[in-house]
Amino acid sequence: MNNKVYIATSIDGFIADKNEGLDWLQTVPNPKNDDMGFADFMKSIDALIMGRKTYEMVKSFGGEWPYSKPVFVLSNSIQEVPDHLSEKVSIINGPLNEVLEKLYAQNYLDLYIDGGSVIQSFLKQDLIDDLIISTIPVILGGGSPLFGETDKLLEFEFVSSKLLLGQIVQTHYSRKK
Amino acid sequence: MNNKVYIATSIDGFIADKNEGLDWLQTVPNPKNDDMGFADFMKSIDALIMGRKTYEMVKSFGGEWPYSKPVFVLSNSIQEVPDHLSEKVSIINGPLNEVLEKLYAQNYLDLYIDGGSVIQSFLKQDLIDDLIISTIPVILGGGSPLFGETDKLLEFEFVSSKLLLGQIVQTHYSRKK
Repeated sequence: MNNKVYIATSIDGFIADKNEGLDWLQTVPNPKNDDMGFADFMKSIDALIMGRKTYEMVKSFGGEWPYSKPVFVLSNSIQEVPDHLSEKVSIINGPLNEVLEKLYAQNYLDLYIDGGSVIQSFLKQDLIDDLIISTIPVILGGGSPLFGETDKLLEFEFVSSKLLLGQIVQTHYSRKK
Repeated sequence: MNNKVYIATSIDGFIADKNEGLDWLQTVPNPKNDDMGFADFMKSIDALIMGRKTYEMVKSFGGEWPYSKPVFVLSNSIQEVPDHLSEKVSIINGPLNEVLEKLYAQNYLDLYIDGGSVIQSFLKQDLIDDLIISTIPVILGGGSPLFGETDKLLEFEFVSSKLLLGQIVQTHYSRKK
């Protein structure tokens, strides 16, 4: 059972700019549409837990739903999902430990944790096992931060690092147990 | 003429913990006292500009003054330095552009910019050319942040990355011109 983060940030640790924009993610030219290891990462997980904002953003992109694995949206405000997503998306809520127990009981063991505030909640409760962070070489100077406050220091271990598109350092850390 | 940052941060971008402590910098064992490229970096600069807090911290460590190059402390509150540092440390103040002109006129061209708030002031005015960041694999969850607000997005270019002590990713970025 592993809770994994796979996300891109600016050098200064933002995952969206001051206007909640993501254009800066395209700063590095990607002519061959390198997926940055995303398909391989998706193979390594059983389901996704994402926040409401991330869910609504992905939904707003339109087009085909991008995830082949079940998506659980952590939300107290959303009650239902559109018909065309009803087999792909479920709404869940409650304390994170209980949410995880429910998913484990359904044999969803390796989870992709996505969205800034959800990641922050998981880290606050020391529930993240793997961090795969792709650093885009820009300083945004403000926006939505990847990290938030935690009560204690969390030690991680370096697993691997690779250079993508000649410009993006992708580093994999796992929680030191 | 290059203004360079050489600094260690946590994964979540802090340069000191919530108690202004630096113990977490020792999280990764360093039995052979690897200097993380510091001596080579020092050879590449002509002088240092640091903030008052950094200066006072370094001074508080006692022992031998660690810098072989001239140190300019940006401060409006300090008027003078102790006798034993008078040939090594000068106090400067004023707008950063004027400070830089003064140093350039003395042939101090490559500068090591150190200390969180000084680095933030330089970045706010787009005056940083090189960023060499060593990421210690811990999440501190709070403390003194390396980065602050900037008015605009600053694009950097990946120069190189190396793994130190098997755990610390040190990445060098330079400002895209």
